[in-house]
Amino acid sequence: MQTALQSWVDRIRAGEMRAVARAISTVEDGRPESRDLLKALFNFTGRARVIGLTGAPGAGKSTLVDQLAREYRRQERTVGIIAVDPTSPYTGGAILGDRIRMQAHHADPGIFIRSMATRGNLGGLARATTDVTTVLDAGGKDIILIETVGVGQDEIDIVRLADVTVVILVPGMGDDVQTIKAGIMEIADIFVINKSDREGADRVEREIRSMQSLAIRSDKWTPPIIKTVASEGQGIAELAGIVAQYEQYLRQQDLLLKKKITNWRERLIEMLRDALLERLLGQRLPDAEIARLAGEIAEHRRDPYSLVEEIIADFTKNTHRGGAEAREKVGT
Amino acid sequence: MQTALQSWVDRIRAGEMRAVARAISTVEDGRPESRDLLKALFNFTGRARVIGLTGAPGAGKSTLVDQLAREYRRQERTVGIIAVDPTSPYTGGAILGDRIRMQAHHADPGIFIRSMATRGNLGGLARATTDVTTVLDAGGKDIILIETVGVGQDEIDIVRLADVTVVILVPGMGDDVQTIKAGIMEIADIFVINKSDREGADRVEREIRSMQSLAIRSDKWTPPIIKTVASEGQGIAELAGIVAQYEQYLRQQDLLLKKKITNWRERLIEMLRDALLERLLGQRLPDAEIARLAGEIAEHRRDPYSLVEEIIADFTKNTHRGGAEAREKVGT
Repeated sequence: MQTALQSWVDRIRAGEMRAVARAISTVEDGRPESRDLLKALFNFTGRARVIGLTGAPGAGKSTLVDQLAREYRRQERTVGIIAVDPTSPYTGGAILGDRIRMQAHHADPGIFIRSMATRGNLGGLARATTDVTTVLDAGGKDIILIETVGVGQDEIDIVRLADVTVVILVPGMGDDVQTIKAGIMEIADIFVINKSDREGADRVEREIRSMQSLAIRSDKWTPPIIKTVASEGQGIAELAGIVAQYEQYLRQQDLLLKKKITNWRERLIEMLRDALLERLLGQRLPDAEIARLAGEIAEHRRDPYSLVEEIIADFTKNTHRGGAEAREKVGT
Repeated sequence: MQTALQSWVDRIRAGEMRAVARAISTVEDGRPESRDLLKALFNFTGRARVIGLTGAPGAGKSTLVDQLAREYRRQERTVGIIAVDPTSPYTGGAILGDRIRMQAHHADPGIFIRSMATRGNLGGLARATTDVTTVLDAGGKDIILIETVGVGQDEIDIVRLADVTVVILVPGMGDDVQTIKAGIMEIADIFVINKSDREGADRVEREIRSMQSLAIRSDKWTPPIIKTVASEGQGIAELAGIVAQYEQYLRQQDLLLKKKITNWRERLIEMLRDALLERLLGQRLPDAEIARLAGEIAEHRRDPYSLVEEIIADFTKNTHRGGAEAREKVGT
């Protein structure tokens, strides 16, 4: 077993496409062997630069990300792309798009693309993105591009935990759509106005500037605004240049480690939350038992608040401390 | 303490506005006394009908919800409104809107409105919505309207757990915006096409119909489509009628309890997840300790995967079973 794991790890580190793909499927599905694999791979991570890119639907994210990947390939850097798009099972758009994008880069083994469109009951999309990043990083990719639709808090959380976060806007969206974007303005290290040949690009730039005048970042960095026309490759080299400048800034100001610590703080909490629930459900509460308890609550034969306390007291080591103290602690 | 709690519960049950408002603040903030309060209140819940309404920004949700509330007041039923809108701290739109809406209903003690715009680190928005629903239900509100912006999975999860889920669409939004809505089509018990005096209402209706032909629900209900112009009150009484019809259908088919069990199943899991993390962080991992561990991970002196296993093994009762078994279980 150890030998098989070791040889798998070696092949991933050598960047073997099939070994990487199998590792990604394994961690995405949270299969039993994924823990040992991730532990072994983590030692070989930390070298890749992780860039998160987000924007409203229709902002041209995929095109921009593909162009940016090409630019990095021109610089002879290898690229992993993780496209997070939890669309409906009705549409299946992400999976189709993934196939099309895969074909466009097919000849180039220096690019690896993975879409993640599904989402488990245990809210595993953030965890899965972290784990897939670990695999691609250990697999030797120099640059990892994480692309999300910036419409939900989960997607924002995912992209926010990159080393560099790029928010993509477009001219000509109504005020209603600007509301969606409100929550993602603060997380931008760099703004991109894509489709900037459209009318209204200057207005978008002015709006960003006026927002920036209201908020000063703790790291004193003022997010630059880059205008691109991704479909024609305009502004892409400039964007890559600004990303490098920001990295340089973080390094000069000794902020890179600080940023990584902040990010790991949040990831660690998420990992603990997911792993705790997974263990509780796996060891103590099979589906049938959850269904039975839900039935008792629905029929008002039990209150869920006391039930949760009881289950947790039984699951953790704190029962012997007595009910009163345990009850007190739950509320804090 | 017991007497103070009892008198608080009594005042909530009598529908006293100030007692209800204080209870909502208490449970929203997760203050220590909230557990005992919620346990006491749960016994008096289950009478209210919970209606979830969601739609893209600009769909006219607030106006529709306000009009529906008025309709229910006309029927002499009391109404609680929970508006979930996690917008940016930059805009503060939700809080402002809440004040304006409060003023519109100011004279009527039969309506209670609460906006929830903030979101804690522990992802407490779903939990908070459940808890506020418990307070309003115990407080004697006949109808509870939960309104969310249908742009993220969290918001969809919140509204999906209502007894009746209404999805609000509008004509004339581009295909890009339709993408946002894709994830919420499956959860609709009733569709509303609001602003239906605009061009394109029939097209939206056809689109819904063609999607419906692809999917048959397990409860055999075909979600009706209601056209409204909420700003002029058109179609609102019809919507209330259809909601009542759906309730009737659920009751006749013995599906109401089944639906409640399904919903409580998911809520219970969420409550367990949040409570477990809260207890772990509160009892074992103060902020400073999390920051220290995050630093060790960021510097690659520890791998997060082993760390999570160690913390959880120490926190739960399973350490004495030995590391090997514990390790195996984590992966399952």
